[in-house]
Amino acid sequence: MRFLKDIIVERGQVFPGDVLKVDCFLNHQVDVMIVSKLAKEIYKRFKDSGVTKVLTIESSGIPLACLVALEFKVPFVFAKKRKTINLTEDLYKAKVFSYTTGKYSDIMIAAEYITPKDKVLIVDDFLANGSALNALIDIVNEAGAGLVGAAVAIEKGFQGGGDTLRQNGIKVESLAIIDAMSPEKIIFRD
Amino acid sequence: MRFLKDIIVERGQVFPGDVLKVDCFLNHQVDVMIVSKLAKEIYKRFKDSGVTKVLTIESSGIPLACLVALEFKVPFVFAKKRKTINLTEDLYKAKVFSYTTGKYSDIMIAAEYITPKDKVLIVDDFLANGSALNALIDIVNEAGAGLVGAAVAIEKGFQGGGDTLRQNGIKVESLAIIDAMSPEKIIFRD
Repeated sequence: MRFLKDIIVERGQVFPGDVLKVDCFLNHQVDVMIVSKLAKEIYKRFKDSGVTKVLTIESSGIPLACLVALEFKVPFVFAKKRKTINLTEDLYKAKVFSYTTGKYSDIMIAAEYITPKDKVLIVDDFLANGSALNALIDIVNEAGAGLVGAAVAIEKGFQGGGDTLRQNGIKVESLAIIDAMSPEKIIFRD
Repeated sequence: MRFLKDIIVERGQVFPGDVLKVDCFLNHQVDVMIVSKLAKEIYKRFKDSGVTKVLTIESSGIPLACLVALEFKVPFVFAKKRKTINLTEDLYKAKVFSYTTGKYSDIMIAAEYITPKDKVLIVDDFLANGSALNALIDIVNEAGAGLVGAAVAIEKGFQGGGDTLRQNGIKVESLAIIDAMSPEKIIFRD
């Protein structure tokens, strides 16, 4: 998506350790006019798939998932990283490695919100090694729901998570795929 | 807001310990068609205040803040509870007590995203003792920004946080205020 690539070049910053900082518009401050356009593009790419539910992980996946769900006019669910007193005992769990905190953690979803009747579209802000998406896919499978595919704003193509998922037959749509990056230059996949 | 009160009665569940579980539509599974209506009502109540930025805390405030920001056509910022490698060193911090986890924690916002030019509307899903809102207000003040007010979906009026803020001259708009609740009955303020 040319629109997103231009914004990444203009407003993103690359730091050592393969960190792409886009928190001025995507995952700390959120420019909803930009993210709304990303959501409309994701809708276009999955609109004929019968999506009944959008699934993401707290926190930075929530804004995009929210606006994608608004396009589809379906609910979204965000997996939780911490157990709150609100969370029921009947839940699905999976392990995910966070690239930004450097730790493994459990993610949890109340079982009642993903059912075998659902056709689930997974949404996140970033796709790198695929750990978060794989954890969400595990939960979709455990729930016996159908997986429509996954949509992310930015894929770090050089970390391979997206291509592995595609090789496994999963429809993964990334609005911008970065094949290489340095503080001087970002190279996108065509 | 009659619409929200009806949904709370129909779909909410009250548990011991003053827990109101509304995670089927507000803060785990999110019914964006419902939350979008709440956002439009909040827009109506603050549309003449010159809002330039919406501010919330991760995670459960994000969906409502996102849709409120969409109404105002301004960015929103969500305060973070954990330091990630993306977060700059130049940040505002405040302490907040979470009613649902039972712990104190720091919240953080990169200083560049709240400036003296901003007129900030704080948004959250719940208002109980007011700890979260007070922490966000501290940050708005520290940044030298203007505070337009605070808008929440559900206020637990019996915990007093909202009334204290109002007594301090802050415009606090809650779409449903609960004055008493039990598993059998929820009593709303008129």
